[in-house]
Amino acid sequence: MESVHKTHHCGELRKEHVGQEVVLNGWVHKQRDFGGLIFLDLRDRSGLVQVVCNPETSPAAVEIAQKARSEYVLAVRGKVISRSPETVNPKLETGEIEVQAEEIEILNPAKTPPFVIQDQVDVDEPVRLKYRYLDLRRPVMQQTLILRHRAMQVVRRFLDERGFIEVETPMLTKSTPEGARDYLVPSRVHPGEFYALPQSPQLFKQLLMVAGMERYFQIARCFRDEDLRADRQPEFTQIDIEASFLPQEAFLEMMEEMVATLFRETIGVEVERPFPRITYREAMEKYGSDKPDLRFGMELVDLSEIVRNSGFKVFSSTVAAGGRVKAINVKGCAGWSRKEIDSWGEKAQQLGAKGLAWLAVKEEGRKGPVAKFLSEEEWERVREATEAETGDLLLFVADRPEVVAQVLGELRLKLGKHLNLIDPNVYRFAWITEFPLLEYDEETKRYYAMHHPFTMPVEEDIPLLKTDPGRVRAQAYDMVLNGYEIGGGSQRIHRREVQEAMFEALGLSMEEAREKFGFLLEAFEYGAPPHGGIAFGFDRLVMLLAGRSNLRDCIAFPKTASASCLMTEAPSPVDERQLDELHIAVREAVTQKAEE
Amino acid sequence: MESVHKTHHCGELRKEHVGQEVVLNGWVHKQRDFGGLIFLDLRDRSGLVQVVCNPETSPAAVEIAQKARSEYVLAVRGKVISRSPETVNPKLETGEIEVQAEEIEILNPAKTPPFVIQDQVDVDEPVRLKYRYLDLRRPVMQQTLILRHRAMQVVRRFLDERGFIEVETPMLTKSTPEGARDYLVPSRVHPGEFYALPQSPQLFKQLLMVAGMERYFQIARCFRDEDLRADRQPEFTQIDIEASFLPQEAFLEMMEEMVATLFRETIGVEVERPFPRITYREAMEKYGSDKPDLRFGMELVDLSEIVRNSGFKVFSSTVAAGGRVKAINVKGCAGWSRKEIDSWGEKAQQLGAKGLAWLAVKEEGRKGPVAKFLSEEEWERVREATEAETGDLLLFVADRPEVVAQVLGELRLKLGKHLNLIDPNVYRFAWITEFPLLEYDEETKRYYAMHHPFTMPVEEDIPLLKTDPGRVRAQAYDMVLNGYEIGGGSQRIHRREVQEAMFEALGLSMEEAREKFGFLLEAFEYGAPPHGGIAFGFDRLVMLLAGRSNLRDCIAFPKTASASCLMTEAPSPVDERQLDELHIAVREAVTQKAEE
Repeated sequence: MESVHKTHHCGELRKEHVGQEVVLNGWVHKQRDFGGLIFLDLRDRSGLVQVVCNPETSPAAVEIAQKARSEYVLAVRGKVISRSPETVNPKLETGEIEVQAEEIEILNPAKTPPFVIQDQVDVDEPVRLKYRYLDLRRPVMQQTLILRHRAMQVVRRFLDERGFIEVETPMLTKSTPEGARDYLVPSRVHPGEFYALPQSPQLFKQLLMVAGMERYFQIARCFRDEDLRADRQPEFTQIDIEASFLPQEAFLEMMEEMVATLFRETIGVEVERPFPRITYREAMEKYGSDKPDLRFGMELVDLSEIVRNSGFKVFSSTVAAGGRVKAINVKGCAGWSRKEIDSWGEKAQQLGAKGLAWLAVKEEGRKGPVAKFLSEEEWERVREATEAETGDLLLFVADRPEVVAQVLGELRLKLGKHLNLIDPNVYRFAWITEFPLLEYDEETKRYYAMHHPFTMPVEEDIPLLKTDPGRVRAQAYDMVLNGYEIGGGSQRIHRREVQEAMFEALGLSMEEAREKFGFLLEAFEYGAPPHGGIAFGFDRLVMLLAGRSNLRDCIAFPKTASASCLMTEAPSPVDERQLDELHIAVREAVTQKAEE
Repeated sequence: MESVHKTHHCGELRKEHVGQEVVLNGWVHKQRDFGGLIFLDLRDRSGLVQVVCNPETSPAAVEIAQKARSEYVLAVRGKVISRSPETVNPKLETGEIEVQAEEIEILNPAKTPPFVIQDQVDVDEPVRLKYRYLDLRRPVMQQTLILRHRAMQVVRRFLDERGFIEVETPMLTKSTPEGARDYLVPSRVHPGEFYALPQSPQLFKQLLMVAGMERYFQIARCFRDEDLRADRQPEFTQIDIEASFLPQEAFLEMMEEMVATLFRETIGVEVERPFPRITYREAMEKYGSDKPDLRFGMELVDLSEIVRNSGFKVFSSTVAAGGRVKAINVKGCAGWSRKEIDSWGEKAQQLGAKGLAWLAVKEEGRKGPVAKFLSEEEWERVREATEAETGDLLLFVADRPEVVAQVLGELRLKLGKHLNLIDPNVYRFAWITEFPLLEYDEETKRYYAMHHPFTMPVEEDIPLLKTDPGRVRAQAYDMVLNGYEIGGGSQRIHRREVQEAMFEALGLSMEEAREKFGFLLEAFEYGAPPHGGIAFGFDRLVMLLAGRSNLRDCIAFPKTASASCLMTEAPSPVDERQLDELHIAVREAVTQKAEE
């Protein structure tokens, strides 16, 4: 029967198929003997169906079904029949019918798997990663990969319809002096020389704009050899986009539409548009973060002016020293115990605050250390600013501005989760705009490009490049969703005089810049069009679409936090002969250590 | 005007746009002053349009147009007007109209490029590769990249509609002991260990079948560190496909349909179907090649039996020694000069033949060295077999079978080209089937898998694995087109006993096999479905679709035959610090040599 083409998927059979003869292929999900009748749950990518083998009508099928264990691969020929009302299984999409087996063939037997194939697994992730081919049999994993595929298709079609051309850029390319650590690839043909795997197709997409491609995209693999946090992978996928002759506003609108289409066509969610535009400055002020979760309020309120001359010295002296005092209003939590409040104070300290001041607005009056130090007038202004009502709890941090933002921003998120203020079924997008162009590094006493040195400044800020570089805003934008940055990009510098001013602000002469960015700068001299673009982190986007919290669950064959593949055991030692051919050697300290 | 969104592409303007105001963005293709009127040919991805600047109606535009040199980037606002009949340019798609400039802005000036941007370039390829961003401005290059994009979209849509899921497999994976040379990537986290870049996603796609994905595809980047021939690249793209539960016949039909859809929807060519199935044996017999060009005849004819006892000793002794005598009939070429025939004889010798015998069928009788040695009866049978008529020239090679195939196969191709028998606008597809499963290597005295050790034998040949492995045919297939192999694949072994017999034929114990193929063999024990697949060489497919002969013209940023990128200068030396972090060193011999 192996040569008989299957006629249906297991999961698609319904009442309307009753009476049809079908051929199914799939895996035994469960087998049970019920007084001589053998029941098989047969599973394929589409779902489950119950197969019943009756010794009276098809003894041969029963004989084979008796041998079938979990995860055996079967071909089943049989007839779709209705289940009697009392045996209908409403939890199963195919639960109104079953397939009465006429013929069964074991296409392949199976060893007992190390864990049961079902959505709720109680097994450590390393085991799942080692047996990834079994882990991926779990319906939820298959559905995530199918969703990922669907998302790629939707994005590609959307961009294709708008004249974007997918161009594959090289994986074996040149090591770049700035940015994250490169993965290197030794060259056999050129002794002592190395390729680098791309951290992003940035250079190539800009060159494609110089080449007149006008609209480019790529769902591109990128590589960063960083110390991996839980939500990073050494190789990751980004939706990489670049366009010429498209003003920033039109470009951002198109990207909104793309993401809205993606959410509509994959998970049926209608996204609210237009996305709010929040400047970087405003985001940091209100949410202490440049990727705010907008699904709930609890915004940071600046009280610095109100408490500048306060009798509460912690506040006034902080403001006097150039610091800030901000609060969040934890609605309805005035009744928290001292212990509970203290536990949040500890979190604040772990996050870098010196302490967490608080004030509870109770029926019986204001309580807490801050209460007694505020004058009535100060309190009145604080109350107004924080919109505090009876029953609310105010939490204050007084510190350097970046500490205040960091601590209250994080506390806001933790409190939002703790208090169940966050609806997981809501998607709140925003654009964060007007990022600073440059960051000052205290250690090296110089400015660095916050995105990259080809990011276009806001037009009116260009003169500031010479006078006050730290204040220059960039034509850069991030798309954020529910507290995640899902995409980021910028308009690029295409005019030579702006590029020169940029390099000057970075402390680079044109000669040094040429050495560093050689061919790209040269390319720009042959007629570069105005252009800009964006890159979306595709793995994370899929994670959010799938409603999952682990990035690894959204990648077919992910790596661990130490960049290993537990299934293939990559990386691994290689033959000395291979290294010889590549003109490299493992450093002695390493080989010695291995021999010890 | 930079902020004004362009309204049209240059190349799309036609008579029906006359009277409209348009904004165009593009590159100056040519500028000429015609008695005070300035004409600009403006170019973008879509084509060219003529812009005319009239000093009487828009003196400001003229002033800027005068400054515009080739490859300047402009924004032009103006009105579409009809050209007068005598100035219509029928060679230009926009030749019936022109744009009367009202306003022009130079978005970016340009240096004079090192070569003129036009389809017919008279410039060495290294210069084109160094300035790839200018080379890609040539319309023919842009059209090829757009065609490539279109081809990807068509393939993806086709496969998506048939339930194939695109899954991204890892780029950082494990070095494999067999196959071509790997590109290696040193690990920073695991000293002395290396990743390998994938030569193909073969292992992963089979694991996805074990994982129950049922139908997988990927347009995947692959890597082989081989000595590069003119038509190879160190990184290349393949359309990688695998399916479970799909019998070979149904799978091949689906792949035919995919390719036919691809040709229809990209270049409008209706491909003849079904593709002929030619066994490997037949292809070698008739065409001396497993990738025959079927656009013309001139098949190889086996005369061994006819001349076995011939008086022509060269023939009869070859047959006696187990060799073969074959001929091709070069129709209508009996009149060739002795010199001309000799020049083909030289080619035959260069290809490995000891000599090339010939016989010309002239009006006045048979001429040439073979003529006089053949008896009348032998000639009559040769004539019949070769279908020789008056005016034809027969060319004979007598040698070992593989030499005969190689030499006459190549001569056939060269003669086909030389005699203009090949219509470049015709597409002749075929499937080559029943490849040998194993190849015997005289040097190591053992069999090797011709494809890979998971290729399924033809069912009826399985017993031969133990008795006569060289005769076992594989369930393997190549798709060929016009003399190129464009795709190849096989059904895979999913049953353990067949896999064991295969390893035995390869001289591997199950233990050795497990060491070599570890996790894949283990995966197969947990319920592997019957499955098979194929991979198409996408770069070559695009080359054939685009009607080009250079693979590099079909890749945005290709590498040279020494695996260099002339634009980025990759590969290149890297910082010692980077190597330190990776626990590797460049071998001393190399560094010393570099210092000398």
